[in-house]
Amino acid sequence: MTVIGIDIGGTSIKGALVDAASRKILSQTAQPTCADEGLDRVVGQIHKVVAALLALPGGAESRGIGIGVPGSVDVARGLVLHPPNLRGWEEVPLGALIADAWALPVSLDNDANCAALGEATFGAGSGIRDFIALTLGTGVGSGIILDGRIHHGARGYGGEFGHMTIDYNGPMCGCGNYGCVEAYVGNSYIVARARADIAAHPESALYAVAMQHPEDVTPKLIAEAAQSGDSCAQRVLYDTGDKLGVAIASAANLLDVTTFIIGGGVSAAGAPLFDGIMSGARTRVLRVHRDDLRILPAALGNDAGVLGAASLVLTAG
Amino acid sequence: MTVIGIDIGGTSIKGALVDAASRKILSQTAQPTCADEGLDRVVGQIHKVVAALLALPGGAESRGIGIGVPGSVDVARGLVLHPPNLRGWEEVPLGALIADAWALPVSLDNDANCAALGEATFGAGSGIRDFIALTLGTGVGSGIILDGRIHHGARGYGGEFGHMTIDYNGPMCGCGNYGCVEAYVGNSYIVARARADIAAHPESALYAVAMQHPEDVTPKLIAEAAQSGDSCAQRVLYDTGDKLGVAIASAANLLDVTTFIIGGGVSAAGAPLFDGIMSGARTRVLRVHRDDLRILPAALGNDAGVLGAASLVLTAG
Repeated sequence: MTVIGIDIGGTSIKGALVDAASRKILSQTAQPTCADEGLDRVVGQIHKVVAALLALPGGAESRGIGIGVPGSVDVARGLVLHPPNLRGWEEVPLGALIADAWALPVSLDNDANCAALGEATFGAGSGIRDFIALTLGTGVGSGIILDGRIHHGARGYGGEFGHMTIDYNGPMCGCGNYGCVEAYVGNSYIVARARADIAAHPESALYAVAMQHPEDVTPKLIAEAAQSGDSCAQRVLYDTGDKLGVAIASAANLLDVTTFIIGGGVSAAGAPLFDGIMSGARTRVLRVHRDDLRILPAALGNDAGVLGAASLVLTAG
Repeated sequence: MTVIGIDIGGTSIKGALVDAASRKILSQTAQPTCADEGLDRVVGQIHKVVAALLALPGGAESRGIGIGVPGSVDVARGLVLHPPNLRGWEEVPLGALIADAWALPVSLDNDANCAALGEATFGAGSGIRDFIALTLGTGVGSGIILDGRIHHGARGYGGEFGHMTIDYNGPMCGCGNYGCVEAYVGNSYIVARARADIAAHPESALYAVAMQHPEDVTPKLIAEAAQSGDSCAQRVLYDTGDKLGVAIASAANLLDVTTFIIGGGVSAAGAPLFDGIMSGARTRVLRVHRDDLRILPAALGNDAGVLGAASLVLTAG
């Protein structure tokens, strides 16, 4: 028995054939999304990915297709709701479109929820009934698992952890609010803070590049410099983690959730970031949660999208 | 058919006999808690309340007893866990103690969860699947209803809304953290802010009392002055609401919950407080939630405790 996981991104559609028993990826494939060419073209690209996977050894035993999409999803009705990066999509019955074409059950969810369910099924959240998975990038993606199931919220918009306020007088966030945690830990904010800090520290390994090619100071470069021992980069990442920890403490107190799984580009920085998160969260969380707080690195890496989508089928029903 | 609701407070144990069909209170009774006299005495007082209700017309048709207790509860096992205001209680099998004595099923939960479930069953949350009920007082009590059920959290500590951070550099909270919303909207903080504001406004109706008997400036007096048109008191309550709104926006964004039910002493202030809450929350919440945001006054008032406890039986299994 196998399942198919499809991860629809802004630039590519990735697919994997996953063995249901061993939970291992048997094969992967991808197609460009062609988002600019409209809905029919994107659906056609999804069909190509499905066709390629079904043609593989084991493909014919597939018991269903899980699909992760950016943006909001009406899970019960299998609808994709106006995804921001897929032009021309308003309310698309993607579940029915794919299910009818291939005569297989299809489960849809948004990519952040898929990532969380993937960690629950295959990764760092295995065996943990309640956790929040955070994916650090341009924004803060989040999926909430309560009592072993994705928390979708009343209308499927649940899980916008990045837009919890940590300082009501803080910097403006892209959403229009002030002091959202995303306005401290989103990639562009990390980079801005790093540039300012590096400029005051000529001894930093990043000083030359920050002065001459500031556009080359990326979260990846900062993470690498931190791993090489640059104290300036380490400080920036520790402070980023500390701010994330403020919101983690709020969520832990609100929900009695004590496990947080951290993935996404900048999470590769490792110790300084994770030390900052643990420090920020542990000093702020209610005493009753303190010793149970777990800040875990995400385990699925680049496979999070397809494995998360596949987990929609594995955990269905 | 009837049910019994018992609300165990620090000073009194209240009980009500509730008609299951009409959901009306048929009769109420109370006994002093006698918390200082130890566990056996308190349990004896609970038995007195139950006995009085069972002896009433309709009492013999009671199909169960719901009990709300301050502090943490292990709902599954019917255990009360070290309630802060009931001396000598560590881990008490109160469910079994009462159930065995009266040969009736007993459901236990903490008082904030009972208040939320009571609003869901009898009050402002009727027909609403997802909401958070907040009780403003010394602290901020909170009960979270997700998909029609109380969210207990992994270990039953869920629902500490008051300890969400709204300014990580803010004033110290009783919990040890800085800038918890409770450190802005708890009664003592409202009073402190009111005294400072009134002192700068000799035209306030509260000026004389604030100068001569500052201890008489209570949330109740502030609420009454606001209702009588005192702009100083109105401003303090609006600002209190605005701060509460910051945390409400965070919780709405995190969970996709858009209904918040506000009760407790200071909620009697009405418009200035509720206007402040709506303003603070609406300007900060993600656009997708803005038009769905509902800030409702709690409907159960002084009966919230016993009706909430009764609702544990009405909604059980």
